[in-house]
Amino acid sequence: MKICIIGASGHYGYVLKSLSKGMKISGIAPGSAGENIGVLRNDMKKMGLLAKEYSDYRKMLDIEKPDIVVVNTFFSNNGKILKYLLERKINAFVEKPIAASLEELNEIKNLYEKVKEEMFFTAMFGLRYKAHFLTAKLLIDSGKIGEIRLINTQKSYKLGTRPDFYKRRDTYTGTILWVGIHAIDWINWFSKKKFLKIYATHSRIANKNHGELESTALCHFTLEDEVFASLSIDYLRPSSAPTHDDDRIRIAGTKGVMEVINGRVYLISDEGPVEPDLVEEKQIFTDFIAQITGKGPCMVTPQDSILATEIALLARESADTEKIIELKEGDDE
Amino acid sequence: MKICIIGASGHYGYVLKSLSKGMKISGIAPGSAGENIGVLRNDMKKMGLLAKEYSDYRKMLDIEKPDIVVVNTFFSNNGKILKYLLERKINAFVEKPIAASLEELNEIKNLYEKVKEEMFFTAMFGLRYKAHFLTAKLLIDSGKIGEIRLINTQKSYKLGTRPDFYKRRDTYTGTILWVGIHAIDWINWFSKKKFLKIYATHSRIANKNHGELESTALCHFTLEDEVFASLSIDYLRPSSAPTHDDDRIRIAGTKGVMEVINGRVYLISDEGPVEPDLVEEKQIFTDFIAQITGKGPCMVTPQDSILATEIALLARESADTEKIIELKEGDDE
Repeated sequence: MKICIIGASGHYGYVLKSLSKGMKISGIAPGSAGENIGVLRNDMKKMGLLAKEYSDYRKMLDIEKPDIVVVNTFFSNNGKILKYLLERKINAFVEKPIAASLEELNEIKNLYEKVKEEMFFTAMFGLRYKAHFLTAKLLIDSGKIGEIRLINTQKSYKLGTRPDFYKRRDTYTGTILWVGIHAIDWINWFSKKKFLKIYATHSRIANKNHGELESTALCHFTLEDEVFASLSIDYLRPSSAPTHDDDRIRIAGTKGVMEVINGRVYLISDEGPVEPDLVEEKQIFTDFIAQITGKGPCMVTPQDSILATEIALLARESADTEKIIELKEGDDE
Repeated sequence: MKICIIGASGHYGYVLKSLSKGMKISGIAPGSAGENIGVLRNDMKKMGLLAKEYSDYRKMLDIEKPDIVVVNTFFSNNGKILKYLLERKINAFVEKPIAASLEELNEIKNLYEKVKEEMFFTAMFGLRYKAHFLTAKLLIDSGKIGEIRLINTQKSYKLGTRPDFYKRRDTYTGTILWVGIHAIDWINWFSKKKFLKIYATHSRIANKNHGELESTALCHFTLEDEVFASLSIDYLRPSSAPTHDDDRIRIAGTKGVMEVINGRVYLISDEGPVEPDLVEEKQIFTDFIAQITGKGPCMVTPQDSILATEIALLARESADTEKIIELKEGDDE
């Protein structure tokens, strides 16, 4: 199975750590003008891997004819490359957000509709596969907390010093799209409810010379059945913190409350508070390969990838325009 | 010092546990038609206290001429009684919200403006005096986390079976006003920033036969300087949980993150993560008495009480009308 990697600005690491027998990275190429893929080359070298390097990914695809393309260039360009792959019916493992505008997302939706029997793609929502999130999902699906009524999510990252392309909206897309989108995916994944209304705010203040990068954001979603979901996003996690991220989700239901915090799961149901044992971590790229090879469905579907991107784009629009955005019936996948 | 208590539907317990030498509860009376004050009578009896009972609080005030009146009747009537006390320049320790409508709050503001040199009142924001919140406040004020950029708050209560007056908006006021208002007060207290925009949603679904009581709510505030604050409110805490409430606040600043959770305080600043020792708990009624007797300012001011009520009323309006509410310049105290 031949893999090509376009770009080195996202989570190509998901691929490197899940390479197995019969898979080969045959080519790598930048996906954007000025993108340096040296970090990918070095990471591969450490693993004893060598791939042909191309300066033009189109040429690489023509020559290598890969089974799978991994797309993780400057965030605003991933959608353009995904479209290119959809047009050529090449399986794509693509960094989120999968589009940088609603127009682009619509084009991707329409293209995918035409080729969906012939190719597969998924966004890199790898966080779902962490042991704590998988455990939480099992608890929710088993009905432990009854009907979901309220969801609170958090994404908090260390900022550090980011590459220059983070500093411009037209290469970075925005903090709701790059960081917040994970929690939007969790809300969709856990609740299975339609998003009906979106309100969001974001701010660039205190972004430590990161140009247009938003250092804080807050989103407020109304889902079907008057279920509400909050999403707090920030790059304010101190460098001295024990982990890079502080991901959280708390779900309050009619029969209990479950939360994920510090990589652990806590449940309070009728039977009292418990900390359930965690199930085993999985790998998104392995799951993606299972789908491609007909061995089982990938947990993150193209529909999930489209939906989370759409909601994140609308949340960014809400924050930019300072307006509540209502989803028209049928907007939602 | 003579105290009269009107109503027994709120936190008169703050008074009972802080009674000291020279204070006497001389009279008690219901504040609303149909209000049973037997629970107050019994609690006083257990302490060996006996007060004259009146059926009409106006008559009680005329006869007893108290120095302080404690107001905690059905939530929608506290404002009416506070107005009555303001007109008579009697010090009032009053349950929150201090008004059930913006019109009533304006009347209270105007009345207070005229008598502020002659009387004092405060809302029962007793949670501020808990050891963990006092500790958190000291940390924030000492600049440990730098400039505040983002605030996340949570109020989660067990529902149990509430008295009938909780089941009607016209006696209960609403969950944002009764429960959420505490966190609005925290946001004001910690940040000292003006509220500029308010967006909120609330739902009565899953309120277990509690009529109009909202079981969930979510508020999204924009403060000055693009500081955002979230507030998640629910009555979904399972009866099996170790405590009645699950109060939380997380504040992310330019130099660190501080949070209060499970009655503990956690701080991550440049110096790494620490769990600071808690300062001693205080009592709001003792603080109120200090103000009345000229021994020091009460931490919860009339202005704070008015502000939190105003913001909570506007948040309820936002949730009812599904609109963003912008505060006009000068609306804020």
